[in-house]
Amino acid sequence: MTKRVTFKPYDITIEVPEGENLLRAALEAGVHINASCGGEGVCGKCKILWESGDLESVQGSLLSDDEWHQGYRQACQSRVLADVVVRIPPESLLDRRTLTRRRKGVGLRPSPIDLEALKDAGLYNPAFKKRFVRLEPATLSDNICDLTRLEEGLAYQHALDSITLDFFLLRKLSQVMRQENFRVTATLDFSRRRYRSPHLLNVEPGDTTERHFALAIDIGTTTVWLQLLDLAHGEILGTAADYNGQLMYGDDVITRIIFSQKEDGSERLQKAVAATINQIMHRLLKQHNLTVDEISHITLAANTTMTHLFFGIDPKYIRLAPYTPTACSIPLARARDLGLEVPEHVFIYSFSSVSSYVGGDIVAGVLASGIYKDPKLTLYIDIGTNGEIVIGNQQWLACAACSAGPAFEGGGIRFGMRATSGAIEEVSINPDTHEPMLLTIGMVKPKGICGSGLINLLAALMEADLVGPNGRFRDDLPTPRIRLGAEGREYVLAYASETQIGQDITLSEADIDNLMRAKGAMFAGYLTLLENVGLRLQDVEQVILAGAFGNFINIDNAIVIGLLPDLPREQFQFVGNGSLMGATLLAFSRDLLGEERRVASMMTNFELSETPGFMNQYIAALFLPHTQKEYFPSVFQRLRTQKGQIIRGGG
Amino acid sequence: MTKRVTFKPYDITIEVPEGENLLRAALEAGVHINASCGGEGVCGKCKILWESGDLESVQGSLLSDDEWHQGYRQACQSRVLADVVVRIPPESLLDRRTLTRRRKGVGLRPSPIDLEALKDAGLYNPAFKKRFVRLEPATLSDNICDLTRLEEGLAYQHALDSITLDFFLLRKLSQVMRQENFRVTATLDFSRRRYRSPHLLNVEPGDTTERHFALAIDIGTTTVWLQLLDLAHGEILGTAADYNGQLMYGDDVITRIIFSQKEDGSERLQKAVAATINQIMHRLLKQHNLTVDEISHITLAANTTMTHLFFGIDPKYIRLAPYTPTACSIPLARARDLGLEVPEHVFIYSFSSVSSYVGGDIVAGVLASGIYKDPKLTLYIDIGTNGEIVIGNQQWLACAACSAGPAFEGGGIRFGMRATSGAIEEVSINPDTHEPMLLTIGMVKPKGICGSGLINLLAALMEADLVGPNGRFRDDLPTPRIRLGAEGREYVLAYASETQIGQDITLSEADIDNLMRAKGAMFAGYLTLLENVGLRLQDVEQVILAGAFGNFINIDNAIVIGLLPDLPREQFQFVGNGSLMGATLLAFSRDLLGEERRVASMMTNFELSETPGFMNQYIAALFLPHTQKEYFPSVFQRLRTQKGQIIRGGG
Repeated sequence: MTKRVTFKPYDITIEVPEGENLLRAALEAGVHINASCGGEGVCGKCKILWESGDLESVQGSLLSDDEWHQGYRQACQSRVLADVVVRIPPESLLDRRTLTRRRKGVGLRPSPIDLEALKDAGLYNPAFKKRFVRLEPATLSDNICDLTRLEEGLAYQHALDSITLDFFLLRKLSQVMRQENFRVTATLDFSRRRYRSPHLLNVEPGDTTERHFALAIDIGTTTVWLQLLDLAHGEILGTAADYNGQLMYGDDVITRIIFSQKEDGSERLQKAVAATINQIMHRLLKQHNLTVDEISHITLAANTTMTHLFFGIDPKYIRLAPYTPTACSIPLARARDLGLEVPEHVFIYSFSSVSSYVGGDIVAGVLASGIYKDPKLTLYIDIGTNGEIVIGNQQWLACAACSAGPAFEGGGIRFGMRATSGAIEEVSINPDTHEPMLLTIGMVKPKGICGSGLINLLAALMEADLVGPNGRFRDDLPTPRIRLGAEGREYVLAYASETQIGQDITLSEADIDNLMRAKGAMFAGYLTLLENVGLRLQDVEQVILAGAFGNFINIDNAIVIGLLPDLPREQFQFVGNGSLMGATLLAFSRDLLGEERRVASMMTNFELSETPGFMNQYIAALFLPHTQKEYFPSVFQRLRTQKGQIIRGGG
Repeated sequence: MTKRVTFKPYDITIEVPEGENLLRAALEAGVHINASCGGEGVCGKCKILWESGDLESVQGSLLSDDEWHQGYRQACQSRVLADVVVRIPPESLLDRRTLTRRRKGVGLRPSPIDLEALKDAGLYNPAFKKRFVRLEPATLSDNICDLTRLEEGLAYQHALDSITLDFFLLRKLSQVMRQENFRVTATLDFSRRRYRSPHLLNVEPGDTTERHFALAIDIGTTTVWLQLLDLAHGEILGTAADYNGQLMYGDDVITRIIFSQKEDGSERLQKAVAATINQIMHRLLKQHNLTVDEISHITLAANTTMTHLFFGIDPKYIRLAPYTPTACSIPLARARDLGLEVPEHVFIYSFSSVSSYVGGDIVAGVLASGIYKDPKLTLYIDIGTNGEIVIGNQQWLACAACSAGPAFEGGGIRFGMRATSGAIEEVSINPDTHEPMLLTIGMVKPKGICGSGLINLLAALMEADLVGPNGRFRDDLPTPRIRLGAEGREYVLAYASETQIGQDITLSEADIDNLMRAKGAMFAGYLTLLENVGLRLQDVEQVILAGAFGNFINIDNAIVIGLLPDLPREQFQFVGNGSLMGATLLAFSRDLLGEERRVASMMTNFELSETPGFMNQYIAALFLPHTQKEYFPSVFQRLRTQKGQIIRGGG
């Protein structure tokens, strides 16, 4: 159930889920309300006036009874239970155009690459199928071995011949066949061999064709995602995630690779991620009243390093020049051999990588988003420690990894942090008062700033004209928010008393330099790839943003700081976790399973550091948004206008 | 170096290896010398007169100085160091025809099915080959993954494409490739896929093409045999054996199957035989200064139950009617998954079985002996607890298992024992005095009688006319050696004081009944199979005896008791351990590896208990040698003659 929230005086109405927090709704609608405690309700700044509708609010100690009766509410302490109308008090009013921008920025379209789309495209055809067979019980005059009896049943009843199998299955075969008087269900893998000669994965007593499940796994450097799939009915039953247990050995792929070279390092990393998967898997199965015995196979996507570490393959040379992975394609592997607590018959189908830094996660995203068969020129972007880029269409695909550095994951930024509770994710700055409006994840007092928050913060600082194109703070403003710190000038987002960490949370010029380097590497990457195939930025017809981080990015703000290209907003599209989606679709489609390696081999890898022109492009991109205005026409247009037309609100 | 021994007064000369024991030489030559302590030298009966040549003898306490100076020596305490002439003293002289018989019986031809024959037949072509490749080291402008680099090397330098591999290999690939600067040797399995698309098993640094080894294994119910094979030079490097560690859980397949049904039973049996293999393997490798890392694969042959138990497959229904194995063909299995202490890349190629009681050991023997492509009608016999029979030629093969019972392995016989130290293996009986001449394994005091000893003993009793065709002892002879015991009449082979066990060692009429049932089942088996394909015994053109036991069998004696058919002796041939030989040849020949399943499927299995005519044949065979004299013309001829013509020796 969605409810409508109307913000006066702008008459901006948006739909939000019932129960949505009002401060979040305002941010979503692009309506500025002062706020600095991140949504915990302790700064008392985010007051609004309630006009009508069912708004559930807590009074707390920061609103006087008088204010309460006048209709004042703290936005962060209010939940939308019905269609409501609220009014932003004059003290919080802000430039209207900012709203427009934000509203445009909201324009996310649902991902076109999901299970329904797969079915519509006629690609729904799992490579794993169950077949029920009714066999004649053995007699003295017909005492062929159990396996031959089963094979003959599959041949006569399902026209399947020359099936293969693994010896493990024989360990239970005779019992299983007799459990329901020689009525059994065979689980068959049609992906490995000719269609009529599948690989026999499992045998179960009786008719279990209605119960057939699989797992899709995305191993991210930070987070591991699992999806539980119902192959009998073509449904995604559930999704669950947890932090990658390898985090205790290092935050990024480089520190993990270094750790892997220590004694037992590789083994410990392998066990850590296997343990994470086991834990998520058991939780997910329990939620759906399933056991591991009903899982027929696993599909997996991960970046090259995560893939190496999960399979226990030495990743040493991924890190050392000339950056060679051991293998880009991983053969089928028995999940048990990798420490997963599943039966012997469960194999893992792993996405191929392209190179050391363009991994199976990207190939999965490319497969899932279908750009390898799309005539439109597409730019596919996954922003993380290493931003990966793919450009191309149905005829060719070029890809590269940009060593963006960990800035967008909060690394190298003094108060940077992961996108967890207390991370500032939404920021707006009043251009007159220079006061911030903050919203944190979990609506608690801030602890730091996450990646998407940094993008939003930097854009807000630019739009409020506090930071110039060179990434330096203005020094002529009468605000205590800008001050000289240990690392150059800095902006104070929250004072110590308003935070969880007991110190001022700031963004310094050194932090901004890091952010510029990160976004500069990405932007130089797009241009370099395009240049190398003789195309220009304007030729790009669609931009797909992938990755959990990509999901939370504000496109307008990312364009403002020069991270994303300044293209029409309707060309942008989020696909969410393209890696997980790719793994899931692989389980549901034999056709895609067959295309996986082809897509990987279609993707030509560019080592940017070795590609002519990249360094020049990179240096040119170390400005906000860029040294060359023609790349960012709408941004320059807006920044210019913004300085003239401001609807002023109070401090 | 062989030496000649001439026995007077017969003027029989045989060649023996230098250092051969004189009592064994006499038995070999078919010369009777009284002896009852099995060769340990404590009965003092086996005296001979030394005439010339270098005979190394120990005087001991049983020869007076006077006797010593006359030239008397104890045969069992004498070793042949040069050509010697000895004389059998009158007290030991025996029927001359017995000698003739024995000498004929010696006529073993070397097995025609060995490695040299394989090479001569153009079948020497191991499916496993090593290929050296010299790769270009990776550079920034050529930083494809290590696996692709190797694949391209194999493609360009050896015309091999689309190779497959297992993910385990990737775990060491990057290190191995860099160890000798991208010069590596690939071990390839050409048996699984098309010739140009082999499976990549292993990669080693540098050029190791001259070092390439494999193991062949025969898992017998009692004994496990291993052969170490040099695939680079086509040689058998060594053979070693030990008792199957499963013996502690039961002597025969039936007791093992029963044990497997207990909790952890199957697992304990699996581990026991794996431990046996590991132990033999490590010993064998050490003898040849090799490590397990140089083994590329394992070939295996075993009976159906041993195969099930080794692979951890439930053998329950092998024992229960209608006697179905779980599987007759075992897919390729990773040796590590079965507890063998070899690297991950070592797979096991296991012979297919035909039925519950005609196993991979028999198929291996059929393959090794080449009868499946021989135009001659061949009878292939493996005598053990379950005697297995194969009859046929290049066009058809019929096979059956005869539930012979364990008599020939010493089971069900009061003093029966395995063929180990102290087992009486050679017996001769003086037809006048009824005194025995015994030789034991290891030449120590007797503990019991082994299978081949039982055949020899029964034949000796028949030839000395102590036992009639019905298996009953004569009760009219003035000898204390025949007496009434707890189980009917019995013959005393050795008195308590002459044995290791402190009691008289005897053979009773109950024991003879068991032996008759065992040999009767075998003989009825041959006749039934032949009848069912419309042939007669006389149509058989060659008889192949397989099995360790078969190797020690005295063909003449086995014919005398009716165990083997009475065919011309030159038609008989020993192949020794056909199972081990089959496993070895499989490793050396891709052609045979490809034929293995075809041969198994060529073999039509007969369940004798379900085959018309078998019971009648069986009952007719419960005589010595048989109720129908026409089956044993030469035996009846000899037994008749024997009673008339006897050269008498002293008591």
